[in-house]
Amino acid sequence: MLQFAQFGAGRIGAIHAANLSASDHARLRYVIDVSAEAAETLAARHGASVADRATALADPAVDAVIIASSTDTHADLAIAAARAGKAIFCEKPIDLSLRRVDACLAAVRKARVPMFVGFNRRFDPSFRTLHERIARGDIGKVEQVIISSRDPGLPPLAYLEVSGGQFRDMTIHDFDMARWLLGEEPVEVAAMGSCLVDPAVAKVGDTDSVMVLLKTASGRLAHINNSRRAAYGYDQRIEVHGVKGRLIAGNHTPTTVELADGRAVSGDKPLYFFLERYAEAYRRELAAFIEAVRRKRPMPVGPEDGRQALVLAEAAVRSLREGKTVRVAATAKGAR
Amino acid sequence: MLQFAQFGAGRIGAIHAANLSASDHARLRYVIDVSAEAAETLAARHGASVADRATALADPAVDAVIIASSTDTHADLAIAAARAGKAIFCEKPIDLSLRRVDACLAAVRKARVPMFVGFNRRFDPSFRTLHERIARGDIGKVEQVIISSRDPGLPPLAYLEVSGGQFRDMTIHDFDMARWLLGEEPVEVAAMGSCLVDPAVAKVGDTDSVMVLLKTASGRLAHINNSRRAAYGYDQRIEVHGVKGRLIAGNHTPTTVELADGRAVSGDKPLYFFLERYAEAYRRELAAFIEAVRRKRPMPVGPEDGRQALVLAEAAVRSLREGKTVRVAATAKGAR
Amino acid sequence: MLQFAQFGAGRIGAIHAANLSASDHARLRYVIDVSAEAAETLAARHGASVADRATALADPAVDAVIIASSTDTHADLAIAAARAGKAIFCEKPIDLSLRRVDACLAAVRKARVPMFVGFNRRFDPSFRTLHERIARGDIGKVEQVIISSRDPGLPPLAYLEVSGGQFRDMTIHDFDMARWLLGEEPVEVAAMGSCLVDPAVAKVGDTDSVMVLLKTASGRLAHINNSRRAAYGYDQRIEVHGVKGRLIAGNHTPTTVELADGRAVSGDKPLYFFLERYAEAYRRELAAFIEAVRRKRPMPVGPEDGRQALVLAEAAVRSLREGKTVRVAATAKGAR
Amino acid sequence: MLQFAQFGAGRIGAIHAANLSASDHARLRYVIDVSAEAAETLAARHGASVADRATALADPAVDAVIIASSTDTHADLAIAAARAGKAIFCEKPIDLSLRRVDACLAAVRKARVPMFVGFNRRFDPSFRTLHERIARGDIGKVEQVIISSRDPGLPPLAYLEVSGGQFRDMTIHDFDMARWLLGEEPVEVAAMGSCLVDPAVAKVGDTDSVMVLLKTASGRLAHINNSRRAAYGYDQRIEVHGVKGRLIAGNHTPTTVELADGRAVSGDKPLYFFLERYAEAYRRELAAFIEAVRRKRPMPVGPEDGRQALVLAEAAVRSLREGKTVRVAATAKGAR
Repeated sequence: MLQFAQFGAGRIGAIHAANLSASDHARLRYVIDVSAEAAETLAARHGASVADRATALADPAVDAVIIASSTDTHADLAIAAARAGKAIFCEKPIDLSLRRVDACLAAVRKARVPMFVGFNRRFDPSFRTLHERIARGDIGKVEQVIISSRDPGLPPLAYLEVSGGQFRDMTIHDFDMARWLLGEEPVEVAAMGSCLVDPAVAKVGDTDSVMVLLKTASGRLAHINNSRRAAYGYDQRIEVHGVKGRLIAGNHTPTTVELADGRAVSGDKPLYFFLERYAEAYRRELAAFIEAVRRKRPMPVGPEDGRQALVLAEAAVRSLREGKTVRVAATAKGAR
Repeated sequence: MLQFAQFGAGRIGAIHAANLSASDHARLRYVIDVSAEAAETLAARHGASVADRATALADPAVDAVIIASSTDTHADLAIAAARAGKAIFCEKPIDLSLRRVDACLAAVRKARVPMFVGFNRRFDPSFRTLHERIARGDIGKVEQVIISSRDPGLPPLAYLEVSGGQFRDMTIHDFDMARWLLGEEPVEVAAMGSCLVDPAVAKVGDTDSVMVLLKTASGRLAHINNSRRAAYGYDQRIEVHGVKGRLIAGNHTPTTVELADGRAVSGDKPLYFFLERYAEAYRRELAAFIEAVRRKRPMPVGPEDGRQALVLAEAAVRSLREGKTVRVAATAKGAR
Repeated sequence: MLQFAQFGAGRIGAIHAANLSASDHARLRYVIDVSAEAAETLAARHGASVADRATALADPAVDAVIIASSTDTHADLAIAAARAGKAIFCEKPIDLSLRRVDACLAAVRKARVPMFVGFNRRFDPSFRTLHERIARGDIGKVEQVIISSRDPGLPPLAYLEVSGGQFRDMTIHDFDMARWLLGEEPVEVAAMGSCLVDPAVAKVGDTDSVMVLLKTASGRLAHINNSRRAAYGYDQRIEVHGVKGRLIAGNHTPTTVELADGRAVSGDKPLYFFLERYAEAYRRELAAFIEAVRRKRPMPVGPEDGRQALVLAEAAVRSLREGKTVRVAATAKGAR
Repeated sequence: MLQFAQFGAGRIGAIHAANLSASDHARLRYVIDVSAEAAETLAARHGASVADRATALADPAVDAVIIASSTDTHADLAIAAARAGKAIFCEKPIDLSLRRVDACLAAVRKARVPMFVGFNRRFDPSFRTLHERIARGDIGKVEQVIISSRDPGLPPLAYLEVSGGQFRDMTIHDFDMARWLLGEEPVEVAAMGSCLVDPAVAKVGDTDSVMVLLKTASGRLAHINNSRRAAYGYDQRIEVHGVKGRLIAGNHTPTTVELADGRAVSGDKPLYFFLERYAEAYRRELAAFIEAVRRKRPMPVGPEDGRQALVLAEAAVRSLREGKTVRVAATAKGAR
């Protein structure tokens, strides 16, 4: 039975804690949060104790940590956890600064602890099936990937101001999907973006509507489109084209009910947002982490994956700013 | 916190026990089963004790029972639980004999205990949405209901021999769906049936392929088709036609992945069988039972619903045998 | 180049005449209609002449006739055309009386002329593909057929009064589909019906909502549901279940456009009615007739098919009236 | 009745000639082709005469010309037809050289004859419905357009060598769609491309797989993906995202038949290629041309549309070569 300390008792923290509790192989021992009240509530619900960071990391009974606190604390906590010899499950992004990500990765490598980065979409049943069927050869060699990823609405401006911008905050998930499904590292990035949803977004120096192109060394191509607005809910679809055919993973809906009336034939809108669409993905990613720690197997998503997605986001920022295609190194610094 | 005793530690019992454990309002106290080993295993998993029937029913701490043992024990257990003053959650069917069902209902009425009959499909998200949207007026007054309900394969012959026949064992769920969605009691039943899957089924006097028509007093019509064979999995679809349009609830699939290749554009088969398709329905029906007991509200599916579905099954048996449309009483004996 | 005389210049007549004109192998020579004006207009449009029946049938240049006049004239015209040695394309039904149908079939057999009965749905691309894929073995031996066939709205009451009733007028197409797809003659018929759309229909002794069950000698089952109302247009769907799987032919839509908005994800309603849905079927059936006449091959749909569908309709009428399953002879009188 | 002279008796020429013949308002008078045999065959089929260019253009009875000959002859023929005062229906592209396009446009403007450029996709029922529903306000102001346009297979290398390259030959249709649906001229173009289908394509200096981004002055974005390979047929889909929702136009299929078996639930592949998918679009575009000429209304697709699509194609060529985002003038030279 693995013992966990969890940093962060907010919305995502609550999900991880509940999934942990449902596992036969893990137990939540400590909850650490800047809000004592949030920590208390979550700890009580799952039979854990509230602790401070030092206590939790010093306790030799703790095997692993979940880092689900605010983004700016991820790297520090990961470094501290690595030094304490704990296995690390870290929410994405590791950090918004590549320099700090590299410092974190160095500490993790030095401590030789396993680290998992929470790219939950890799564990979504539909997207995971894409990956498995590509691996199985259903469409032959991959040629093009097309990712549509659109949020139902704008987050608060206060959030946008510290988010690192749309590419680092939102597209980063799609960069990870593109890398994972292309089966090859992108080496060129071209991006366009604008502010169509709310002019206030432009005032904080961000975009709300972007499109990206990626190209790998062998010439495979990927496209990503993002919007901070989708009146019909959370639009999460991926297409992969290969020599022998095309795979599409579509949206998920609450029911299969369809109405035909005098106006149209209509079905459910997609599940509303990431908590609904990726509920199963959150369950499965934590189970995968627990399984890998227990069996001392390689992490299915590692810190270099977190780093390389950020590299692509930074290239997109630059491409947008400079109006040119930006080349990136295919090999992540210290890659696997 | 409601305390439960559960009769039956088999496949369905395991599902109910797990759903009970996940509830914030219920606790599994006793497991009772003819197999001591099965009872032990299930009790251990959920922190319950193994008991015998007398002990469990005599314990005043027990608020409610789940009857998930073999069909021939349902009525007796329900009568005993009613006399002990426990709330009853009983798997369908209450019994295969209408006489024994009536005895059970009389005992339940006399004891004034709440009784829920496990027509889980009423809690399937898609089918429940049909019901809600009909109630909301999306298609106006209901005119016709069409139910396709097809199993992936034959159960063992040993099971078929004690099942009461296809109408009582399989179609009974669809009779309940038809009553629920028609919004009016069927008063006429016509049935056809044959043995197309395996001639061995005919030898035990049963059918494996049936079609039924139902008609209500005001002329609403329903059709049910059943087969004990569906090479592609579990086919569970319902259409409802009304004055203003049509609602269809389709099959559920594990993913939304679609492959286009040189042969076809193809998607997932439906979820394999009832454990997969109705996992959510099992969760929701037990939650509905717990909620109704806690808040002392009427049961959402009562013993008269169990009885009336059996009345329709018996009429179908007679229609098939006699080659004529059989009339049934619209009002269930002792109906609500 | 085959020369045609066409009886009937109404709505269906206009379709056949236009399809004839587009053929490289046929020419419309005469149009005959009770309305001189309708005949003139249609003849002028396609470079044909107006004629009376005697002239048209006496002209040795005429190879074939199309009978698209009112139902009560079909049998007489077919008999006259048979005696004149013309190949016959006759709109369904041959007649509403089985006695007169038999007289017509006797005349046709005696004259040894080919006769085609216009069950156009056999030539609908989707339904035809069902038949071809069954023949190809895609689903193994057929077990059940389910036919949904629903009109957008009621025809005028004046039409209903002479239509022969819903089974003879509307269900007759579905009886033909059932026979064709079951691959075996139905020998038992059970029917239910009511008047849900308009009470005026009951006053003329008809139904507007019916459901039928059919069974073949080997136990194959079929279901048909009909309504004279479908708020969303013309609902024409067929399912065929076999040992190895299920084939479904769905509705056709004008476009593939789908809208996702704050309310739903919605697509086109089905094509409005038979003229839209079966436009291609009308083209292909006439081409098939022309081809069969030119190459002296057997008619793909013959007069016995017209007769046997009527036999099933009459059995349904009796089943509805008498409340019992009606047996019919599997072998059409004078069958092929 | 408009009289037509048609240049070109090849595959597309045969389609236009047949659609012309079916019109009540047009007649094919002359066919002109470098192959006397092809001209003879087509002329004979539609009751036209074979002529040479001079004769056809000099005949005052000729109201309009269809230019469906090889691309390198389009501009010259259009100029000659303009000088002869004929209305012009010209297959796309007008020319592969912008200079020659401009010369052609100048001649057409000077002669004040109407000219239609054959962007047939604007007349595809599904794509046209997109445009109409945007105009109707179904999705509010347009924000993003995503175009997937993929051919079933490579054309012959000999064709590729004179095609002008993938952007001018294939993407040009998609540039037109993007302009039409964005409702605003693109002013920035970024492109990536590679050779994944066949290395021989690279040898002739072309690509077979490209992705493009476009941006309008107000910040609207569009993406186009193209491939010269799609194992499942002709993939032609467009998505448009607006403030209030999303419209998608999907592929068209020959039937609606769906098979569920032990492997999957599978439907038809898309129609094979442009002749199948756009058969209706070809019919409707010619009808639109005839209607506009007859009623002296503005051409629904004019020469400036042909020019501006070429401008975007040239920008894509440059973006691909130079690795930067290329700006283009929003206003077509001599725009309407």
